[in-house]
Amino acid sequence: MHWTDLVAEKKQRQVKSIPQDWLVSPPPDSTLDVTGFPETCGLLNAREIEMTNTSVDVLLERLASGEWTSVDVTTAFYKRAIVAQQLVNCLTEIFVDRALARAAELDDHLKKTGKVVGPLHGLPISLKDQICIKGLETTMGYVSWIGQYAEKNAVLVDILLECGAVPFVRTNIPQTLMWPESFNNVFGRTTNPYNRSLTSGGSSGGEGALIALQGSPVGVGSDIGGSIRIPAAFCGLYGLRPSYGRVPYSGARNSLEGQDSVLSVFGPMTSSIGGLKAFMKAVTNAKPWLKDPLAVRKKWDEDEYNLADHGSGKDLCFAIMWDDGVVVPHPPIRRSLEFAKAALEKAGHKVVDWKPIKHGELGDVTRDIWNAASAEDFMITASLTGEPIITTMELENADAVRAPFRPKKGGITAYQLWQVQRMRRDLRKEYLDHWEATASETGTGRPVDAIICPAAPFAAPPHGKNTYTNYTTVWNALDYPAAIFPVTTVDPNLDTKKPRHDFYDDFDEGIHEMYDPETFKNAPVCLQLVGRTLEEEAVVKMTEIVDAALASAK
Amino acid sequence: MHWTDLVAEKKQRQVKSIPQDWLVSPPPDSTLDVTGFPETCGLLNAREIEMTNTSVDVLLERLASGEWTSVDVTTAFYKRAIVAQQLVNCLTEIFVDRALARAAELDDHLKKTGKVVGPLHGLPISLKDQICIKGLETTMGYVSWIGQYAEKNAVLVDILLECGAVPFVRTNIPQTLMWPESFNNVFGRTTNPYNRSLTSGGSSGGEGALIALQGSPVGVGSDIGGSIRIPAAFCGLYGLRPSYGRVPYSGARNSLEGQDSVLSVFGPMTSSIGGLKAFMKAVTNAKPWLKDPLAVRKKWDEDEYNLADHGSGKDLCFAIMWDDGVVVPHPPIRRSLEFAKAALEKAGHKVVDWKPIKHGELGDVTRDIWNAASAEDFMITASLTGEPIITTMELENADAVRAPFRPKKGGITAYQLWQVQRMRRDLRKEYLDHWEATASETGTGRPVDAIICPAAPFAAPPHGKNTYTNYTTVWNALDYPAAIFPVTTVDPNLDTKKPRHDFYDDFDEGIHEMYDPETFKNAPVCLQLVGRTLEEEAVVKMTEIVDAALASAK
Repeated sequence: MHWTDLVAEKKQRQVKSIPQDWLVSPPPDSTLDVTGFPETCGLLNAREIEMTNTSVDVLLERLASGEWTSVDVTTAFYKRAIVAQQLVNCLTEIFVDRALARAAELDDHLKKTGKVVGPLHGLPISLKDQICIKGLETTMGYVSWIGQYAEKNAVLVDILLECGAVPFVRTNIPQTLMWPESFNNVFGRTTNPYNRSLTSGGSSGGEGALIALQGSPVGVGSDIGGSIRIPAAFCGLYGLRPSYGRVPYSGARNSLEGQDSVLSVFGPMTSSIGGLKAFMKAVTNAKPWLKDPLAVRKKWDEDEYNLADHGSGKDLCFAIMWDDGVVVPHPPIRRSLEFAKAALEKAGHKVVDWKPIKHGELGDVTRDIWNAASAEDFMITASLTGEPIITTMELENADAVRAPFRPKKGGITAYQLWQVQRMRRDLRKEYLDHWEATASETGTGRPVDAIICPAAPFAAPPHGKNTYTNYTTVWNALDYPAAIFPVTTVDPNLDTKKPRHDFYDDFDEGIHEMYDPETFKNAPVCLQLVGRTLEEEAVVKMTEIVDAALASAK
Repeated sequence: MHWTDLVAEKKQRQVKSIPQDWLVSPPPDSTLDVTGFPETCGLLNAREIEMTNTSVDVLLERLASGEWTSVDVTTAFYKRAIVAQQLVNCLTEIFVDRALARAAELDDHLKKTGKVVGPLHGLPISLKDQICIKGLETTMGYVSWIGQYAEKNAVLVDILLECGAVPFVRTNIPQTLMWPESFNNVFGRTTNPYNRSLTSGGSSGGEGALIALQGSPVGVGSDIGGSIRIPAAFCGLYGLRPSYGRVPYSGARNSLEGQDSVLSVFGPMTSSIGGLKAFMKAVTNAKPWLKDPLAVRKKWDEDEYNLADHGSGKDLCFAIMWDDGVVVPHPPIRRSLEFAKAALEKAGHKVVDWKPIKHGELGDVTRDIWNAASAEDFMITASLTGEPIITTMELENADAVRAPFRPKKGGITAYQLWQVQRMRRDLRKEYLDHWEATASETGTGRPVDAIICPAAPFAAPPHGKNTYTNYTTVWNALDYPAAIFPVTTVDPNLDTKKPRHDFYDDFDEGIHEMYDPETFKNAPVCLQLVGRTLEEEAVVKMTEIVDAALASAK
């Protein structure tokens, strides 16, 4: 069968998996902002709209108390997810009956025992299209993997089930996962609900778009170079990239399998900040190291969450990184950094400047490690059915742009790989020493507590234009946990284009030229908070502190 | 300069670094057991003999109270180390004045402040010849690295200094580190003090021989496939191979730099069991993750040491692995396992059999990962001065034996390496599930608490005959912490050669044929206790429990 026939058959099955009475009449493509549509389209009743607009913390309370049933909550989110699918093409696997049956079991359990199954009882959770669910396909956007049904759940799915969650939908990604946008030959392109001419980011771009439309309260993305944080930032969400091994990865599909150096990690994406802690606490307390040999033996540490290693959260010192020394961020990003600085100072925290060192090198060695054999990895999979390897994320398949995640043609030897990995290790040591040395500048007796920096030099750009990912990738290279939080949206009145005359290089100039207030209008603007390796608890708490400071200052 | 001239010059400097009045008249080479010599040679006085025979716990108490000065203790161990050097050639760098100056500073500090510098105050610690000390060479047995003086301490040295320790000597290794015996072109061969016709093991063979002669109370070895545990086992010591990143490695020299998959780790070797906890607690509580980006953020956990995850240590269930399904151990090893089983049952613990799975495969993938580029790694270093790559550890440089750590000629591609690494990851998952599944057999409600198994299929073999390391290497592949503890010595009366007729294969038969009670006479016999990843605290405690049970049963 030709690969396009395989795709047609798969797409047909996807369409059939949508309940017919959940089909709506979406606005024309020319309607760019579709964020209001789910609540006006008529599919969701008032109670369902309320449920889908409720924060994760309150959802969990009401589900645990039985005030709301999991069947009702799951139905509400499922309907909204299916609306989202019709607006921005964010879904891959759709399995309504199965999810509702699971929800009904949980409701029964609560009714009979008076007890919740676990800390995430009844909560619908969406999953990136890597996270295998027994009996479902996990194509990961590869035509070659159509028809391969998982024999086992990924470890994370088993743990989410233990925690009482309801996995209810899977979400779109780019072919190979190694793009910061989301387009593949099986499911096509996911667009940004705030402005459909813009990308929702990637590789967890389906999650980003879905959650931005409140089609899921919490989703799981993966992040090897920014794949949770970029879509979270482009879609106005909270997102956390944990350290290696904090969330179990075993049993999921992936690209670059066997690459043991710069690892992909799973983490939460959510529209309400409480979702970060709820997810991380539940998963780490489920002892994932008993199911995944690479999971770190470390339960959720409430002392660390209460900032035991950061002066109990009094008198924090944040460092703002205004630019990374490679690409200067666009005006909306600059404005959000200035706003964050003012808000934090107003809240009584100290703010200093972060001096980035060797961010270019960190990005380069990371990509060299991925690309040591990425071309072979992709080709071997794609060639099984002859589907073409995608070379651009532009709408028209015209000239390829400078694509940060695109593989080089040839691989390298193991010895060459070791030399790059060694360079990266040395850069990690240098950066650690650099951070420790800030103790002399903070006045707290501690090094900087967290870095606040852009997630990208721009808000969500037009399709095919997300060409610079180092603002996220360097933290993968360093294995620092990093959280995304929303600050504002692009406002052409406030975010005018300012002339610049000094550029780091042509690439920096090109990014500058890309900015146009009308193009980016209405795009969310988020920032990133970066902590120390295996300090997820403190990163979540400090993100909550920053979020509260921003809310107070607004 | 020819490489042999470089060696001659280096050896001359080494000889000069020994105080002339510490030279003794060692027994002739035909005297095999030299363990009694240090106390009879006349160099150490009675108090120095007492000091060097004192356990680590008591040493630390007396040093902290000022009852014994660090200068006196360090002098005593230094003298005994120099005697050891003359018996078994275990040392590389010798720096008496520097170590004694450091000891004097510590004594001054205690005198003036009444306080110890840290938990290892005044304790001499020996270091494998990888662990850089500022101003000293770290040749690691490579002629090419003669004359390269370290500009900085390794992170572990800085941390040991913070803890109050006195690094006082460095110890011998094999060329490339990737041999389980200890011979190189710079410093020559280290022999086993219990029987100098036998190997002291490797790669931390200098440590093993030194500590066996009580020339150091605690030493630091490294272990990528057994390099702490093999010499600890061959020399009758305690030794711990911690999980990846528990003890800082940054700033040390190493082989296979940039190999990010099966990592080498540092850990303690000691003649007294208290040395394991004293070292691990001090180092992990010094927060090594603030100095080493690969160090795990995990302080010493006293709850885990008290076996919080193992029923508080009541009603433990150990599993004995009698053989690994590849090579059947020699009679003395079998006898020690039987003795351990009886002792543990007598102490009220449950003992079941461990069923090994895929130990052959685990060893194979591990070696394939190392050998992906080991030949290039070694050749590039050796070729700088033209020193030959060593191809056998036999006394006569005759036929090469089957050498488990010897590199293959050609390297592989990064893609091929990823495929092997992927196989290894899958084996780790399979083994984890296998261990978890034992919960149904223990009767404790928990999976097996620890595995007890051989450290090698034999006691210390003759030079060049240590040809099978899987009894240790599989735990590196799985990243399980593992401790060595002494049980007995080879006794030709008890350990007679028994006929065998069924062999796994020719290799197994060859190992069987190697056994001869007289050859191995007096060699120490140790066993290995294996726990779960990042469970160093519990492994140390369970080793103490087993050690106490053995002592009661003797």
